[in-house]
Amino acid sequence: MKSIDFWFSIGSTYSYLSVMRLANLKKDTGVSFNWRPFSVRAIMMEMDNIPFAEKPIKTRYMWRDIERKCQIYDLDATLPAPYPLEEFDLANRVAIVGSKEGWCRDYVTSTYKKWFQQSQPAGSEPNLTESLHEIGQDPGRVIELANSPVMETAYLAATDEARSLGIFGSPTFVVGKELFWGDDRLEDAISWYKTGSQS
Amino acid sequence: MKSIDFWFSIGSTYSYLSVMRLANLKKDTGVSFNWRPFSVRAIMMEMDNIPFAEKPIKTRYMWRDIERKCQIYDLDATLPAPYPLEEFDLANRVAIVGSKEGWCRDYVTSTYKKWFQQSQPAGSEPNLTESLHEIGQDPGRVIELANSPVMETAYLAATDEARSLGIFGSPTFVVGKELFWGDDRLEDAISWYKTGSQS
Repeated sequence: MKSIDFWFSIGSTYSYLSVMRLANLKKDTGVSFNWRPFSVRAIMMEMDNIPFAEKPIKTRYMWRDIERKCQIYDLDATLPAPYPLEEFDLANRVAIVGSKEGWCRDYVTSTYKKWFQQSQPAGSEPNLTESLHEIGQDPGRVIELANSPVMETAYLAATDEARSLGIFGSPTFVVGKELFWGDDRLEDAISWYKTGSQS
Repeated sequence: MKSIDFWFSIGSTYSYLSVMRLANLKKDTGVSFNWRPFSVRAIMMEMDNIPFAEKPIKTRYMWRDIERKCQIYDLDATLPAPYPLEEFDLANRVAIVGSKEGWCRDYVTSTYKKWFQQSQPAGSEPNLTESLHEIGQDPGRVIELANSPVMETAYLAATDEARSLGIFGSPTFVVGKELFWGDDRLEDAISWYKTGSQS
């Protein structure tokens, strides 16, 4: 195992915690992460898993829980962030382009910051264009590519791969054959990765 | 705040982790827990929250996740344990009796051990009678009391109280007005409790 696969969808609220932690984590742990965007929404609909948005009591808890976790992790956040995302798929297809071209992590980190710190929904304007500008990418080129059949196919293929691995939520960390679901399993995933490497 | 309220339902799988950890925790942390049985099943049905049992992919993940956590916490477990429980309500009404009489924690710990370590469903025989014997209670007396209208009323009242607090899952730790849902939030709850006490 050369890295931990970090499966996520932009649009998942708890994934903000992982995105921000991973953006800072690598230098401390020596562990590298392979950022894998997919459509958790497609899989949740297939499985009849009901998103937080339709559960007001759980949603209220979720935002408070994320707020506390942001304090623990020392992350900025203006909560609740706009939710759910209207341009969920576009946000993630841009991440797919980024994973082909090597700037996935930078884009995802930038767009999540604007979403969670400045209340600008990911995938919509101005978040999308500004996030791409910020990381030195041409929004016109990237958005056209993100809307192309080849990237739609790649997005579906990534989602198929996630499904075949048994993934049903975002974030999910995959270490060999082990799945770790949820930001709160990140430490367990790292621990498993290191133990696996040593044995 | 004199203690952390530990809201749980016997029948929740992840609650095994908390039950076993709490049974050993008090002496280390100086924190005490007030064990509060309620019917998470009633609340989940009201909220249309779908239990793990109807989600095969999530259920498979859940057992593997619990297995790994048991290893991390050094807890015995023969998994998967029988699930869901057929006598969910009886198991919890006995816990209600225990909370009135001061042996709730001992009973819950005993019945969970038989459920998760010996594959004997909680609330059913032989688990129920043996758990009560083990903690020095007369099964005939306790089961009759657990089936009495007064304990049914107390069970419903506890569930009403949980609902009014915004509880929707088991285990939930309540520290003042803060809810912490899930065994993986136990450390956060303890930390909040200690900070609250100090401020």
